[in-house]
Amino acid sequence: MTTSSSPGRPRDPEVDRRIARAALDVFGDTGWAGFAMETVARRAGVGKASLYLRWSSKQALLTDALGEGLPRVSDVDTGTLHGDLVELATQMLGLYAGPSSRAALRLSVEAGSIPGVAEHYEALRQAQILAARAIVRRGIARGELPAAASVTLLLETLMGGAMMHALTTPPERRPELANDTAAHARRLVDFLMHSVTAGAHA
Amino acid sequence: MTTSSSPGRPRDPEVDRRIARAALDVFGDTGWAGFAMETVARRAGVGKASLYLRWSSKQALLTDALGEGLPRVSDVDTGTLHGDLVELATQMLGLYAGPSSRAALRLSVEAGSIPGVAEHYEALRQAQILAARAIVRRGIARGELPAAASVTLLLETLMGGAMMHALTTPPERRPELANDTAAHARRLVDFLMHSVTAGAHA
Repeated sequence: MTTSSSPGRPRDPEVDRRIARAALDVFGDTGWAGFAMETVARRAGVGKASLYLRWSSKQALLTDALGEGLPRVSDVDTGTLHGDLVELATQMLGLYAGPSSRAALRLSVEAGSIPGVAEHYEALRQAQILAARAIVRRGIARGELPAAASVTLLLETLMGGAMMHALTTPPERRPELANDTAAHARRLVDFLMHSVTAGAHA
Repeated sequence: MTTSSSPGRPRDPEVDRRIARAALDVFGDTGWAGFAMETVARRAGVGKASLYLRWSSKQALLTDALGEGLPRVSDVDTGTLHGDLVELATQMLGLYAGPSSRAALRLSVEAGSIPGVAEHYEALRQAQILAARAIVRRGIARGELPAAASVTLLLETLMGGAMMHALTTPPERRPELANDTAAHARRLVDFLMHSVTAGAHA
């Protein structure tokens, strides 16, 4: 996470963590338009000068904080398509309902227009696409999915469904969701795997 | 749309439209943190004073602009579940890919924390939920859906899938998407109706 900070400077990991937390909170509250070194310093309870000693710009500070604070989606092979999708959906819900949910939601809307941060979001997105692709590839190999299965639509409905669920969960109830992401992930995947019309005409 | 503006004042509809457009553009660019009467006035090419003559606060201005500029989702009975869902998805894509897409995306992330605007977003959401409920109710009545079909999951995957598709379409390609929302809406609904595993083991 320290690629953009000065090399060789002694660091206090506890202060670094507090600054990263404050940076994500400020970004989550106000987005890029309200993101300022001074606001982050005040929120973290450190001097503005000590922020500038560590980061040369607010882009560098935000990029480090996002790298530190936002969980990156990774591919886990559980042995079944259902298990793999539940794992992916659980990670997405963790991202959008967890302690940095507001920053994650902001990032998905704003990333493209923040210089230097767009690349970071692209890397997050790529990790999600790679995980989804690997899941679909294994699903096809196991005969659980048709060879022409759409990775894009699967990813968009799974991620979009997870994001929309977090968005429509009132902020005060998001910690509850974050504590039990797997339960909703299973409901979401069951829904997508059985399609909206399964069971009709029964 | 003019509930919060002064009554009895002569209005120029063309100026009103320009101001509403500018307000949505500023909100789309910077969110609430960067939303200021002065910025909107400059963007619309009118004096700040004339904005204050019409709206007493920036909340009132933004609420009017959102009411004017964001299409409200409505329920259309096409006679089939597939047709109804395509219509709903087309409207959602129009919202998230159309000329006010950035404001619509911002609103979904920020609405809850903007005093006086949260209610407006809630009304938009309620219209979407009512439309989805009516579609599911008709689908069950026609025997196209099981009686226990989840309105929430259907709405979250359909809306979330539409939103995610718009979000991951680069801004310069969104007008192209906005011009042909029905084509993607059909792909999305076909995917949701056939489920990810349909056709496997064929």
